[in-house]
Amino acid sequence: MAGYQPGEQPQTGKFIKLNTNENPYPPSPKVIQAIQAALEGGLARYPDSVADSFRTRAAEVLGVEPDWILCGNGSDDILTIVTRAFVGEGQRLRLPYPSYVLYKTLARIQAAQYEEVRFTSDWKLTRDFAAPADSLRLAFLPNPNSPSGTMVSPDEVLEIAERLPCPLLVDEAYVDFADQHCLRLVRQSPRIMVSRTLSKSYALAGLRFGYIVAQPEIIDQLMKVKDSYNCDALSIAGATAAIDDQRWLQSNRAKIIATRERMAEQLEQLGFSVVPSQANFLWCTHAKQRLRPMYEQLKNQRLLVRYMDYADWGDGLRISIGTDQQADACLGLLESALDQK
Amino acid sequence: MAGYQPGEQPQTGKFIKLNTNENPYPPSPKVIQAIQAALEGGLARYPDSVADSFRTRAAEVLGVEPDWILCGNGSDDILTIVTRAFVGEGQRLRLPYPSYVLYKTLARIQAAQYEEVRFTSDWKLTRDFAAPADSLRLAFLPNPNSPSGTMVSPDEVLEIAERLPCPLLVDEAYVDFADQHCLRLVRQSPRIMVSRTLSKSYALAGLRFGYIVAQPEIIDQLMKVKDSYNCDALSIAGATAAIDDQRWLQSNRAKIIATRERMAEQLEQLGFSVVPSQANFLWCTHAKQRLRPMYEQLKNQRLLVRYMDYADWGDGLRISIGTDQQADACLGLLESALDQK
Repeated sequence: MAGYQPGEQPQTGKFIKLNTNENPYPPSPKVIQAIQAALEGGLARYPDSVADSFRTRAAEVLGVEPDWILCGNGSDDILTIVTRAFVGEGQRLRLPYPSYVLYKTLARIQAAQYEEVRFTSDWKLTRDFAAPADSLRLAFLPNPNSPSGTMVSPDEVLEIAERLPCPLLVDEAYVDFADQHCLRLVRQSPRIMVSRTLSKSYALAGLRFGYIVAQPEIIDQLMKVKDSYNCDALSIAGATAAIDDQRWLQSNRAKIIATRERMAEQLEQLGFSVVPSQANFLWCTHAKQRLRPMYEQLKNQRLLVRYMDYADWGDGLRISIGTDQQADACLGLLESALDQK
Repeated sequence: MAGYQPGEQPQTGKFIKLNTNENPYPPSPKVIQAIQAALEGGLARYPDSVADSFRTRAAEVLGVEPDWILCGNGSDDILTIVTRAFVGEGQRLRLPYPSYVLYKTLARIQAAQYEEVRFTSDWKLTRDFAAPADSLRLAFLPNPNSPSGTMVSPDEVLEIAERLPCPLLVDEAYVDFADQHCLRLVRQSPRIMVSRTLSKSYALAGLRFGYIVAQPEIIDQLMKVKDSYNCDALSIAGATAAIDDQRWLQSNRAKIIATRERMAEQLEQLGFSVVPSQANFLWCTHAKQRLRPMYEQLKNQRLLVRYMDYADWGDGLRISIGTDQQADACLGLLESALDQK
């Protein structure tokens, strides 16, 4: 089998990176201070195996109890734990198409099957997504979705969950940039789980910290599958400080959204079709231009965006929202690339 | 199923912790400096997905090539990756008994079977450990073993690997405290893998960093199973500095071994039977005393050791090697516990 191929992460040279949806701003200074303090506290001891300091603070912020939360080494770890807990060999998981390719890789690693249910051309889900199927054990719904940045409303998600014959994981990696979220649904249905990451909206991709919210009976099952000490002492300290600093989050969110809206408008002016986004990236297609050469030209000019080509769907550029300066650099390079045609 | 139960990790109160084989000394100051520098470098970007800086430096120290190394979020992550890569549902893995209980938990999570092959009473392995068996896909050999601290010699390990019908993972979590290791065997056999952790001998249990050495074809397969970004930016920086500081390792190792030898002698004087140890802990039994009440009495006095009771084998105290002062405190409490009988 082929492994999952993450976006390019050049370790040398100066690139403007608008290809993996990282936050262009540094994290809250309180995160750095908390990590410094943990570092002074020492590293020789094992960390708290369930990250209770984070769970306690996150529970207050999110309006749940600590035992509704399980922490992971990035939300990749969470997705792996959930897949292993629910899906056995030869069983099935479901995901929409086009969406996050990693879900398929998780199925393959587990020697499980997957089925993809296509979005409509305007990124809505049909009733097929909730249809019964043999050995279906888990459904993944990235919401907002990648690469589109679109959302399925909480009411629709609840309806899907009620009709599905298996648990539903709502992957809210990008939800802090959206207008709504599905957290309240976790109380309404024991079959809905919501996962989140601190990588994007808290600017902590380098720290690896994610979590899942679900009813305690589910969390208990997931606890048995995770590695004993899956989060390290520094990431627990940093993540706790991050979720505690909601003021930083709101201010960062506002900056990203402002740049997103401006960039979307200017991309439209350049002739791109841009899907209205609820995330920190934009999905851009173009009626008249070939996009792969454009991606390559930008890469030669040391600016990375993500070129994606979905079989039987079409291709596009997924452009992460950077600083205003990075957005302008990207728009400038795209404009010259168009001029040359 | 029941999850793995790690040793007690009290998050509050002052305990002398000699129960989970942590290093009693702080890590190399160079590790702290490297983490500080990485912290200043920022956390908003994803880390290097294969931790090449560590692989490059570790390869030089260990005398292999970087593509012979895969890094993990602690060696628990490594053990999980290897189990998932080699063992399917209903297939089998093998481990010695008594040894590290986590291997059984890994089998259960994978819906796999496990078979335990008993050590002889003097902690040797019989030929049964290498016997053929249906659907046997992986054997785990902790070397030094826990709880005994004993080793199987590299020559014997090679002989076992050559007769086994499956790959052999030699778990060298404690090997830096031993007189020999199995790294050279990886060149001699594509079916031998050696895993290590920085938790014990580098005093970095809080950081979560481990690695495995195997031939590149094996590493390629394991890469496909691991989470894309399984090591965070701070742990990669810290681990690279740690393995670079072999002088610190040798000095720390010498201190631990000196305390271990002194403590073993004094425990024998108190009437315990102590297995000669190649690790940073001692396995102690007693012909005349019940050990569980002794463990409980020490715990009430805020000193933790690990009480273990192996079905059809017997019980004992596994005592981690602390500082000389901690060792003296432990010996003192044990002595009074004995006096009271």
